[in-house]
Amino acid sequence: MRNLRFTISYDGTAYSGFQIQPNADTIQNRLEQAVYMLTGESVKVISSGRTDAGVHAKAQVINFITTSKIPVERWCLALNTRLPKDIVAHTAEEVSLSFHSRKAAKRKTYCFTIRSARFPDVFHRNYEYHHPTHLNVEAMREALPCLLGEHDFTSFCTVRTDKEIKVRTLYEARLETEADDLSSDGKIVRMRLIVSGNGFLYNMVRIIAGTLLQIGEGKRPSSDMQRILEAKDRSQAGPTAEAKGLTLWKVEY
Amino acid sequence: MRNLRFTISYDGTAYSGFQIQPNADTIQNRLEQAVYMLTGESVKVISSGRTDAGVHAKAQVINFITTSKIPVERWCLALNTRLPKDIVAHTAEEVSLSFHSRKAAKRKTYCFTIRSARFPDVFHRNYEYHHPTHLNVEAMREALPCLLGEHDFTSFCTVRTDKEIKVRTLYEARLETEADDLSSDGKIVRMRLIVSGNGFLYNMVRIIAGTLLQIGEGKRPSSDMQRILEAKDRSQAGPTAEAKGLTLWKVEY
Repeated sequence: MRNLRFTISYDGTAYSGFQIQPNADTIQNRLEQAVYMLTGESVKVISSGRTDAGVHAKAQVINFITTSKIPVERWCLALNTRLPKDIVAHTAEEVSLSFHSRKAAKRKTYCFTIRSARFPDVFHRNYEYHHPTHLNVEAMREALPCLLGEHDFTSFCTVRTDKEIKVRTLYEARLETEADDLSSDGKIVRMRLIVSGNGFLYNMVRIIAGTLLQIGEGKRPSSDMQRILEAKDRSQAGPTAEAKGLTLWKVEY
Repeated sequence: MRNLRFTISYDGTAYSGFQIQPNADTIQNRLEQAVYMLTGESVKVISSGRTDAGVHAKAQVINFITTSKIPVERWCLALNTRLPKDIVAHTAEEVSLSFHSRKAAKRKTYCFTIRSARFPDVFHRNYEYHHPTHLNVEAMREALPCLLGEHDFTSFCTVRTDKEIKVRTLYEARLETEADDLSSDGKIVRMRLIVSGNGFLYNMVRIIAGTLLQIGEGKRPSSDMQRILEAKDRSQAGPTAEAKGLTLWKVEY
């Protein structure tokens, strides 16, 4: 028996999220099918964490136990030829049998991308949230530092969750901006909210993003972020931002 | 009567190219349908030039004559709500009735993008050519300067063409490289062949790209580019590179 660990990326547009569900097309299902086609084995693919319907991954980490003797350096190509084009395995390595990609994860980084321009960018239309009116970047940036450190993130967690402990630690919460490469006026057209922490509650990054967008729109002051955090009440925060803007960027062990 | 000029972008993946053809879904057809839905008029949309099936545009220029009185600043949004999500109008302006987006074009820029890595990038999979083995960037760069200036580009033109004069002037032919933003080893993972000129023959950029890839693979010396150019013989050049790697980047007037 061997435990194999992979880094994979996927375009989540066409899927009902990572985790297997009845009558739904999921990333986990496609991965398990690909392993079955390759080895004839029914494995259980474990990930660093589920991603919701429409959410993407640049570098998700998965692992599974197999009895296959296929050398580790052949696995990515072998899986990629059996996976749809929107799921790609990039790296493979053999790890100790005790490694569990969710339980062992030390730090995860998510990116929520906002296109701030009158019209969408066709080439990124499935990977970013389009916001056609002005956003106040400075106000958005001021709202972020209060989230750093260890907090009870109940306000930024969907009410339909089974996790009782809502305390998480954020190491990073920043807003990067990009100007248009075609227009010379240097106007900001893309913003990336980069958030990393030791773990995330259900919908946490999307609710932080939805609240941050309201701050950028001037509907709330920057100081609302801290007030909402302290309230420990989901109804105080903004809406859950659109799934397609969210990408699992990196998982560290 | 008014002549309206637009900058549009499109993801060409789902289309049989720009130009209207019987029983085919084309960009021109979708644009003319959107104008019809908006105004009830059957206009003829003129572009700076047709793009082939699967080829994209970041900033294509089109124009058409209309009797509609809709103010120019409302046109983009009005068209975008009537266009599929893979075609987006970005700018609109009223121009003189004599303006013709193909005849008036002074300079066009194309970009052919190569992903040089073992596996494809899921987020760019429809917009770049995936090349899994090593490419010699220096050899590729050495091959490009000979293309600059006025030449007969017969060798880089498909044989099925009706254009008799094969002389064009190239102003720019360079290869830009990008490293992976996740890995720290600075390895090149993306190359962009940027070519601009006063006009392009049918398949010209794709045949230059196909020849350049053979040079990068070591199948031909860099000096072959000049020899092929002078031969004025399509059979001397490399294959026509895949359409999805090509994007019409910019049109200047």
